[in-house]
Amino acid sequence: MADVFSTIAITCSNNGTNTKDTIDQLIDYLRERGSRIVLSAELPAEIVGAADVAPEEQLAELADLIIAVGGDGTMLSAARLASEGQIPVLGINRGRLGFLADISPNEIKESLDQVLSGNFATEKRLLLKGELWRGDDLVASGLGMNDIVIKRLEPARMLEFKTYVDGQYVNTHGGDGFIAASPTGSTAYALSCGGPIVHPTMDAIVLAPICPHTLSDRPVVIPAVASTDVIMLDYYDSKAEVSGDGEFLAEMLAGDRLHIEAAGTRVQLIHPPGYEYYDVLREKLHWGTDRRNPLRDKNSGQ
Amino acid sequence: MADVFSTIAITCSNNGTNTKDTIDQLIDYLRERGSRIVLSAELPAEIVGAADVAPEEQLAELADLIIAVGGDGTMLSAARLASEGQIPVLGINRGRLGFLADISPNEIKESLDQVLSGNFATEKRLLLKGELWRGDDLVASGLGMNDIVIKRLEPARMLEFKTYVDGQYVNTHGGDGFIAASPTGSTAYALSCGGPIVHPTMDAIVLAPICPHTLSDRPVVIPAVASTDVIMLDYYDSKAEVSGDGEFLAEMLAGDRLHIEAAGTRVQLIHPPGYEYYDVLREKLHWGTDRRNPLRDKNSGQ
Amino acid sequence: MADVFSTIAITCSNNGTNTKDTIDQLIDYLRERGSRIVLSAELPAEIVGAADVAPEEQLAELADLIIAVGGDGTMLSAARLASEGQIPVLGINRGRLGFLADISPNEIKESLDQVLSGNFATEKRLLLKGELWRGDDLVASGLGMNDIVIKRLEPARMLEFKTYVDGQYVNTHGGDGFIAASPTGSTAYALSCGGPIVHPTMDAIVLAPICPHTLSDRPVVIPAVASTDVIMLDYYDSKAEVSGDGEFLAEMLAGDRLHIEAAGTRVQLIHPPGYEYYDVLREKLHWGTDRRNPLRDKNSGQ
Amino acid sequence: MADVFSTIAITCSNNGTNTKDTIDQLIDYLRERGSRIVLSAELPAEIVGAADVAPEEQLAELADLIIAVGGDGTMLSAARLASEGQIPVLGINRGRLGFLADISPNEIKESLDQVLSGNFATEKRLLLKGELWRGDDLVASGLGMNDIVIKRLEPARMLEFKTYVDGQYVNTHGGDGFIAASPTGSTAYALSCGGPIVHPTMDAIVLAPICPHTLSDRPVVIPAVASTDVIMLDYYDSKAEVSGDGEFLAEMLAGDRLHIEAAGTRVQLIHPPGYEYYDVLREKLHWGTDRRNPLRDKNSGQ
Repeated sequence: MADVFSTIAITCSNNGTNTKDTIDQLIDYLRERGSRIVLSAELPAEIVGAADVAPEEQLAELADLIIAVGGDGTMLSAARLASEGQIPVLGINRGRLGFLADISPNEIKESLDQVLSGNFATEKRLLLKGELWRGDDLVASGLGMNDIVIKRLEPARMLEFKTYVDGQYVNTHGGDGFIAASPTGSTAYALSCGGPIVHPTMDAIVLAPICPHTLSDRPVVIPAVASTDVIMLDYYDSKAEVSGDGEFLAEMLAGDRLHIEAAGTRVQLIHPPGYEYYDVLREKLHWGTDRRNPLRDKNSGQ
Repeated sequence: MADVFSTIAITCSNNGTNTKDTIDQLIDYLRERGSRIVLSAELPAEIVGAADVAPEEQLAELADLIIAVGGDGTMLSAARLASEGQIPVLGINRGRLGFLADISPNEIKESLDQVLSGNFATEKRLLLKGELWRGDDLVASGLGMNDIVIKRLEPARMLEFKTYVDGQYVNTHGGDGFIAASPTGSTAYALSCGGPIVHPTMDAIVLAPICPHTLSDRPVVIPAVASTDVIMLDYYDSKAEVSGDGEFLAEMLAGDRLHIEAAGTRVQLIHPPGYEYYDVLREKLHWGTDRRNPLRDKNSGQ
Repeated sequence: MADVFSTIAITCSNNGTNTKDTIDQLIDYLRERGSRIVLSAELPAEIVGAADVAPEEQLAELADLIIAVGGDGTMLSAARLASEGQIPVLGINRGRLGFLADISPNEIKESLDQVLSGNFATEKRLLLKGELWRGDDLVASGLGMNDIVIKRLEPARMLEFKTYVDGQYVNTHGGDGFIAASPTGSTAYALSCGGPIVHPTMDAIVLAPICPHTLSDRPVVIPAVASTDVIMLDYYDSKAEVSGDGEFLAEMLAGDRLHIEAAGTRVQLIHPPGYEYYDVLREKLHWGTDRRNPLRDKNSGQ
Repeated sequence: MADVFSTIAITCSNNGTNTKDTIDQLIDYLRERGSRIVLSAELPAEIVGAADVAPEEQLAELADLIIAVGGDGTMLSAARLASEGQIPVLGINRGRLGFLADISPNEIKESLDQVLSGNFATEKRLLLKGELWRGDDLVASGLGMNDIVIKRLEPARMLEFKTYVDGQYVNTHGGDGFIAASPTGSTAYALSCGGPIVHPTMDAIVLAPICPHTLSDRPVVIPAVASTDVIMLDYYDSKAEVSGDGEFLAEMLAGDRLHIEAAGTRVQLIHPPGYEYYDVLREKLHWGTDRRNPLRDKNSGQ
């Protein structure tokens, strides 16, 4: 029986420096299996070897699956690429479970056997889009699988900004900035800012102020169909930066408006059989291993 | 043109002791208008006056609208009553805006004119149902428009319990208890326990541990279609209590299982024109009036 | 050279059921060394063996050192006992590092060799005293090495109470209760309620509201020379319980006043060489093992 | 009887643009009273009028009291200036109570009558000193009455850094930065980052991580005699900025060490009779005005 995916793009972080072994192993395995392989033309020769290359932005057109080798950051980049071609993404981690990259390097063969035979689960994850408007001009736009974030550029100055949801005035905030996070991003930066964990199947967006001046300025969860606008106020000439998944999008000035909404497409994540969201959460957040008051072993569900 | 609602039940808190003036005014107005009025048979004679009475649990059958006079607690009780007859609820507060009771006593006439003429907005709010199981026996069950809560009964003892969502093991918790809150309840007790504010239109449930021993044991937002089970563990004979909207449901013992899910019906809240959720939020949480660093007036959305 | 401590009292939790092996090993070692040993007369015969016994409340008079075998709870009890006789306390844990019990069972010999030869560090820890007053009557009083806590008894009812520091009005609180914690207790229950970690050498008391209704009602750190008074208000007949280190002291009614201040004596903790507070903190709080974003190994200070 | 202070320096924010009326009134009053007055030579002519001027850094030598007109930021600057000459500082706010500037413009006459007659309270507040070391070179140093803060300069990059207290390794942190706050600063930026409120008489420093990646990385309160060192690690070339009370001190690179300790002098704050710290706290944090659950009026201590 033919494999479910025939052309597979491989992406990695840091030019593959930390993951060369895993990439080699992956390429060998896929070749054996008869898959076509394509890598980014920007990768160094010692990573690519004899494999085909293409410009990064064409990978999603050429392939029908992207395998990202690295941490969650690599997965985020791969997912944004994949979303343009509507193809799925699979993640191989660097030897430690990621929120997104859930295949361990030492189980590549077993896991890919399953996935390529069609034995996998597909999950659709919300993708956010941010547009920065200056008057009637669209200054910049970008995607965030985790989040779209506004942060102050001059550390010693507070930002002041107003938020609107579906055109309704919500609040005027003072503080270090603002996060609009997808459920995927709810366990990333937003969690460090007091946001809740949101189950990835939810059509929800977390709006979380960063170090808010007002103590009652708490995270709000809104429906993913709602759009959010943030208007930067002029507070002692403070400046801000907008980023998507930690990638710089644009500088934000007083009067600018950042419009955030769900992107038209979703990210398709592929998991080999056995994946369970709460297992990953428990592992990543040290749940069930309370050292302040060690009880019985709480890591099994029994 | 005939009024949209012809028979109106009136409920109040504390036997109406603090709200007699408002109830009198309301009854006078409704009589003038020609509405039929029915009150709970449990209310004292000086509140009821010449109005018809009926047992509280029949109000929702007899009336096609409940008007609750009092605070948000009165609204919660009225809403649970109303949900059985699938009739809507309208709230008149005690002179200060409530999250749920949003008509001020001094605007009764104007607001009811609008509402009875059909000029109003209806909102459907999630209702939670909790069932306490001891082995195969259903020990108790109840509703919560705000929340279903487990709290320890002996203050000096920690509880230990496991949570499952849709049958999947989530976590083993140590602490003072556990809250499953609807979006409505997200601004009540759950907010004091570090939970997020959830927009009332969302089909979401907030699962929040109370004073959790593990610092990474943070609130989780799950879809309203998901069911949650909490199993109490035996931790030094600690005992717990289950309540719905603050009303006692049952004592919970080690081995007991509390099953929480969305109730079959929703609560229908009625608001006169002009109601806006974020306005209420802003008013109740002192948003936009930051006294630590007073900026310009931030209460207008302009 | 003679040992620094000649008569040693041994205490344990749960009648020694989980720690019999360790107690046996400890008794054998102390006997070899020629120490006099005394245990609580309440312990079962199989724990005591041939050792001398005395009523628990006399242990601090008879001995010049208490060794507590068990968890931090056992240490707290031992410390309150020891404080009356002004003798020091040493803790042997159940195989896992405690905040207070820092000798592992498998290093008893080496550690006690050092301690009994006088090679140890002594730390003085703040002890709190709580007095419950009803009008002019002292209803109950007790000690807390960790904390003095007020908790509501009826889970579904909020408490309302006022706090005063050195007679100055501080705040009116609504919520689940109130904690006055010593620096030692700052890593216990108060930490779960949003309190800071306070270095144990500090003369400080943490006042932390439990699940406060007002979001700006945050923990306050005051000097240990300051006294705190909490007055319970009448809020829908709610009742509360006062405890010291989790041990019941008294029921607290509306109008009652709880007076909290530093006790006249301090607890003397003994640590074998090598003890470092921040090492314990790091181990107990999983610091430096961030699984959300695994960096390099962060557990060494280099 | 002669006034307690004979030469009075006046400072203000923003070149006095928002406070001209108050400064005029203050100068008139002081002149009547026969005080010598000195203002910063950097202020515009329309503010200074006929008063004497001197370079800002000489004000503390020339005067025996500084009166700061403006918000808490103006007070912080004045206090750092005053600390060099060991003279006290008094604050007149812009019409709204500040944490530090507690005289209202409309009570200038009454308050200054009292203060200049010697009827006032003096409070000594901790002042922090930060020194940035690059190898053996002192790159920069500065004071903070509120705090010494490290913040990331590139918003999209996390910082990684190690902390040591009195040379003992404490933790390796990932996040947006780090705050060392005095008790005065505990109600400023540190409060927005989850820190406790620390009574101003305490000899304590709050060490608070900013948006820490690890959820158990909580604020720690240490004695003011302890010194803290923060070493910046190399994390993807991230850069940081060090500031004191929000004033830029230096850029901090990987390998740099920031040394923080109590400055040799304290700030002397002067309050007219009737000042009470908890009253200010209650007013600034909206305590006792709980709009989520409005109880009786809680603003009086009775």
